[in-house]
Amino acid sequence: MAEFYLGADTGGTGVKYVITDSNGQVVFQGEVPTDPHSSKKTMARLAMEVAEKIAPPADSNKPVFSNLTAVGLACAGIVDPISGHLGRSPNLPGWEDSNLKRIIANEFSDKPVVVANDVNAALYGEYRFGAGRGCENLVMIALGTGVGGGVLLNGQLIVGSHNGAAEIGHMVLDPSGPTCTCGGVGCLEAWAGSVAIVKQARLLARVELKDTALSLLVSDKGDDLTPLDLSLLAQKGDAASLALFAEVGHRLGCAVGNLVNILDPDRVIIGGGVAQAGELILEPARAMVPQLVLAEEAKNVPIVLAELGPLAAAMGAACLARESLAIG
Amino acid sequence: MAEFYLGADTGGTGVKYVITDSNGQVVFQGEVPTDPHSSKKTMARLAMEVAEKIAPPADSNKPVFSNLTAVGLACAGIVDPISGHLGRSPNLPGWEDSNLKRIIANEFSDKPVVVANDVNAALYGEYRFGAGRGCENLVMIALGTGVGGGVLLNGQLIVGSHNGAAEIGHMVLDPSGPTCTCGGVGCLEAWAGSVAIVKQARLLARVELKDTALSLLVSDKGDDLTPLDLSLLAQKGDAASLALFAEVGHRLGCAVGNLVNILDPDRVIIGGGVAQAGELILEPARAMVPQLVLAEEAKNVPIVLAELGPLAAAMGAACLARESLAIG
Repeated sequence: MAEFYLGADTGGTGVKYVITDSNGQVVFQGEVPTDPHSSKKTMARLAMEVAEKIAPPADSNKPVFSNLTAVGLACAGIVDPISGHLGRSPNLPGWEDSNLKRIIANEFSDKPVVVANDVNAALYGEYRFGAGRGCENLVMIALGTGVGGGVLLNGQLIVGSHNGAAEIGHMVLDPSGPTCTCGGVGCLEAWAGSVAIVKQARLLARVELKDTALSLLVSDKGDDLTPLDLSLLAQKGDAASLALFAEVGHRLGCAVGNLVNILDPDRVIIGGGVAQAGELILEPARAMVPQLVLAEEAKNVPIVLAELGPLAAAMGAACLARESLAIG
Repeated sequence: MAEFYLGADTGGTGVKYVITDSNGQVVFQGEVPTDPHSSKKTMARLAMEVAEKIAPPADSNKPVFSNLTAVGLACAGIVDPISGHLGRSPNLPGWEDSNLKRIIANEFSDKPVVVANDVNAALYGEYRFGAGRGCENLVMIALGTGVGGGVLLNGQLIVGSHNGAAEIGHMVLDPSGPTCTCGGVGCLEAWAGSVAIVKQARLLARVELKDTALSLLVSDKGDDLTPLDLSLLAQKGDAASLALFAEVGHRLGCAVGNLVNILDPDRVIIGGGVAQAGELILEPARAMVPQLVLAEEAKNVPIVLAELGPLAAAMGAACLARESLAIG
């Protein structure tokens, strides 16, 4: 009988999932809506949909997953991979302080469950199948709404003593920088998260750049303005948008410089929606790093884009589930 | 026959060493002068002195270390623990680009040799015998002439992909800060290394604080002024010296905050000569950290002084030598 692995990635609005075979090949993929108030209802919905794809019909109401070997769940927030406890989770406040391992096991015939922070899972996916293949020391910076991070050392994800490690977005780069959503000042996220980028564009449009291409874009798009819109404008040569992304890239480079001085990884992987700006941010980041890094051999650390796209965390979660069985 | 382990810590002027038994207890300790031009001559001198303590008399000129089990050497600079190669080493330029493992083995009857960066070795010593006992995740910040660092995760020292990790002194905390010896701007070392502290005291004495207790101390001590002199003045209540150390502690706290957001250790250990200032720097550092750390559980990470003193690196090196045999 086929052995399947489920990897799921819980976001604020939907749960993306992949079902893989025992080699990690994705055989099904899909998405179910997130119930922001109930992890239990969300997982029950996921179980029904997965059952339709791989479980033989069951007599009872609850599907029996006889050919599912293990489940991996990625979730934004402070996740304890040992106990399965979800602590603070700004995108899923209704799920906070619940035991995800137990809830998932209950819906999936008590199969073994692995849980991980979403950026950690995405990094693991990139490590096994994407931009980090062949490297045992990796740093990932996920430039999304906020800025998340992941650290892999000697092939192991680093979670720290209280599951608080790899909060790269809240490294303070400049104490006279902008205020961050965390309440701090001058964190990487205050420049390089999509909320910060859109905020900065609106500020420029209102104050310095009236009646320019940037201000027209800002008023056209209104609340729907995204960093992607701005990067498309920059790619057309608009000086103000180019300068905006150059600043994001410069600050990203400062963060990478500090991280290389601390961790000296093989590669730094840049993911998340803002990474669609590509060379607009990578080029200034790469220009900054060698000035900051002390060890000669570490100065030219490759700074590369993530390769797996929006399914990275689900794929990584499936992979973590598979490998946890091989170890334990 | 007794099994001895040698641990040595090479500084710019002397090599401190300990000889331990198989439980890590120090049975002899001493120091030989460093020949800054020759690692070989220095190790030969060390071998002669160690032989007087533990080796039975030999027929040849070279001692035979029949009861020495392994040797650990700590050295400032970029050390490759696998090959034994010493790269950049600002305090020992005459030793750069040499293979320390081979040179030591040659002087010590081809015994197994382990080499490590000096702060890494000191951290390992604190982990096994000092301020880090019982913790598997530790960060050490060594406030010496410059500022060095060490990172231990899951009981393993982190060296990175090019032995460039844990260069904590060169984390940029503020791009409008003072210039650092590395050529960068606003690195931790530019505030918290002893060179930076003494420089700042001299600047204050010359510019703002003529005819004060601080300026009198600066002119009395001349070139011999140390952070310890300044901390003694601060402990007497001198406002200017107190403010100077408060700023050092504040910046140290900023560095610790960033490190906790990346690594989330059990403890942060502060060592090196400047750490003699004790609470003068620890108190402002502790006040800063919770404001910067994202994960609730990690906010109150203990920030503690190193316990082993100047022999920490030698003791750690002996311990690494002993444990490397147990593993491999």
